[in-house]
Amino acid sequence: MAALGAAGPRPALDEVRAAERRLRGRVHRTPVLTCAGLDRRAGRRLLFKCELLQRTGSFKIRGALNAVSSLVERGQRPRALVTHSSGNHGQALACAARAEGIPAYVVVPRTAPQCKQAAIRAYGATVVPCEPSDKARVETAARVVQETGGVLVHPNQEPAVIAGQGTIALEVLEQALRPDVKVFAAEPSNVDDCYQSKVRGELTPNLHPRDTIADAVKTSIGPNTWPIIRDLVDDVLTVSEEEIKQATWLVWERMKLLIEPTAGVGLAAVLSEKFQAVPREVENVCIVLCGGNVDLRSLTWLTDLSGKTE
Amino acid sequence: MAALGAAGPRPALDEVRAAERRLRGRVHRTPVLTCAGLDRRAGRRLLFKCELLQRTGSFKIRGALNAVSSLVERGQRPRALVTHSSGNHGQALACAARAEGIPAYVVVPRTAPQCKQAAIRAYGATVVPCEPSDKARVETAARVVQETGGVLVHPNQEPAVIAGQGTIALEVLEQALRPDVKVFAAEPSNVDDCYQSKVRGELTPNLHPRDTIADAVKTSIGPNTWPIIRDLVDDVLTVSEEEIKQATWLVWERMKLLIEPTAGVGLAAVLSEKFQAVPREVENVCIVLCGGNVDLRSLTWLTDLSGKTE
Repeated sequence: MAALGAAGPRPALDEVRAAERRLRGRVHRTPVLTCAGLDRRAGRRLLFKCELLQRTGSFKIRGALNAVSSLVERGQRPRALVTHSSGNHGQALACAARAEGIPAYVVVPRTAPQCKQAAIRAYGATVVPCEPSDKARVETAARVVQETGGVLVHPNQEPAVIAGQGTIALEVLEQALRPDVKVFAAEPSNVDDCYQSKVRGELTPNLHPRDTIADAVKTSIGPNTWPIIRDLVDDVLTVSEEEIKQATWLVWERMKLLIEPTAGVGLAAVLSEKFQAVPREVENVCIVLCGGNVDLRSLTWLTDLSGKTE
Repeated sequence: MAALGAAGPRPALDEVRAAERRLRGRVHRTPVLTCAGLDRRAGRRLLFKCELLQRTGSFKIRGALNAVSSLVERGQRPRALVTHSSGNHGQALACAARAEGIPAYVVVPRTAPQCKQAAIRAYGATVVPCEPSDKARVETAARVVQETGGVLVHPNQEPAVIAGQGTIALEVLEQALRPDVKVFAAEPSNVDDCYQSKVRGELTPNLHPRDTIADAVKTSIGPNTWPIIRDLVDDVLTVSEEEIKQATWLVWERMKLLIEPTAGVGLAAVLSEKFQAVPREVENVCIVLCGGNVDLRSLTWLTDLSGKTE
C-alpha cells in the first residue's frame, strides 16, 4: 500500500497500475469483510481485506505473478526461477512459474511449517532446504541461480514484486476507502526492525532473536522497502506474542477466517492500547489479512489460550 | 433453496422475494468463493456460498430476522420471542430480537457447544437449558411461551423462517447459477431421517442414536419441511463421520474458511463415491457453507486426523 503515488526509486503509481492490468483475471479480487463485534472492541469501523482467500492462500501471488509475467512479456523467458522464502512467497513463485511453464526452485529454511513446504512441492517446484538465517538463504539461492542459469525473484526487494503487492491498495481504494489514507505498519515486538529503523531514521536490520509465532515476518526489511516505509508509513506499531495470538483467535472465532498468525499482527495493533492514541477522526481502518497458510497440525497454542479472550 | 417456485403449503416464491426485500441491508450478501484444488478433487466446478461469513456466523439470521420482522410489520409486536435450538438459530433469534428491542428466550440442550450458548447470551437473550431430546426442547419452550406470554419462532418449521432461509437461493441464482438447478440434500449417515423419509416416501423421524460431529443437524425434519424435501429435492446423500471430518479439514486448510463440521457435510457428499454417479453434465455445484460457529476449544479431533487428508 505504501508504494502508492510515490516518486523516485520505489515503484511509481503507473507501475502498480501496470501490475493491476497484468494480474487482471489471474488473481482473485478478494472480498472486504466487516465484523460488528470487532468494530465495538476497536471503537472504529474495521474493514478486513481478505488476502487469505487469495490464490495460494496469501497476497504474495500478486508480486510473484507480476514479476514472472513482466520477465516473460519483455521476452526474457528465464530457464528457471529461484527464490528464498519462509513459505508464502515460495508458494506464490511456484504457482506463477507453473503458470508460465518455467521450472522453479525455492530455498526454504528447514524450520518453515511443513504445510508450506508441501504446498510449494504441490505447485511443482523443487524445495531446496537451508539453515534458518538470512545469510544461508541468500547464499543458497545464489548457488541455485548459478547452477540452473535461472533468475532470482527476491521475495520483498524485487521492484516488480513490490509493485504487484501494491495492487492490494488499488483494490481497497476502489472497494472501501478514500485515497487520503494514513498508513500504519504493524510488527511483532520480537522482530521490530521496521520500528527500529523508523525510530533511528536509517535501515536497521533485526538484532533480536527471532522468536515469534508470526513466521512470515521473520525476515528484515531491505534497501528497496526501507525508503517506502521511511517516506510513506505514518507510524509503526509493535505488538506482543500474546496480543498476536489473541487477535488471531478473535478472527478465527468471530470472523470464521482461518488466518495465519502473521495476519493477526495488524488487528493486534489496532486493538492495542497504543492505537487508542490515534485521533478519533480515523474512523475507518482497513486491515490486510495477508495470508491463511496455517499448519493445522501445530495448533497447540490455541488450547493454551482458551478462556483468555472472553 | 428447495422452496423456490413451489406452490401449496410451503412458502411460495413471492414469500421468499418478500423476505429478500425485508432482509435487504440487514443481512450480508455473502461471497461465493471457489477453490481450484477442490475442483480438481471433485472433478467439477464448485461454488461455495459462504454463509459462515453471515451475521451471527450462520445462515439462520435470514429466517429469524424475516420471522421477527414479519410479526412486527403486521403490528403483532410480541412481548417475548422464544425458540429452541442447538445453537445457530438460537443466536440468530437472539440477534433478531435485539434488533427489534424484544426480549428473547432460547431453550438450549445442555450438550450444545459452550461457544454457542455464550454467543446467545452475548446477544442479550436468556438461555434456558433443557435435556438433549426433541421432547424436552418442545416442552420447555412451550412452558416458557406460557410464562412469558411470548411467541414461539420454531427453528425450522415456522414458514417465515423457511422463507427467510430461501433467500440464500435467490442470491446464489443471481451470483452464480442458472435457474434450472438440481437440488441435493446431504446428511450424516448417523442422522439420516431425511434420507429415510425419501426412501419410504413418508416423514420418518430419526431413530438412531444421534452421534455425529455435525451438531447442527441433530434434529429431525418436520411436517413443514418434509413436503419441500419430498417434492423438490432430487436426491439425498449420506456421509460418514470420517468423510465429514475430512471435508471440514479440507475447507479449513485449502479455503481458509473456519466452517463448523455441519457445513462440511455438503462438501463430503460432493466428494463421495456416490456423487460420482451424478451425470457429468452437472458441471457446476454450489455448496452452501451453512455456518462457522465452531467451538475452538474442542478441536482434538483435528489432531487425530493429521496426515489422513494428504
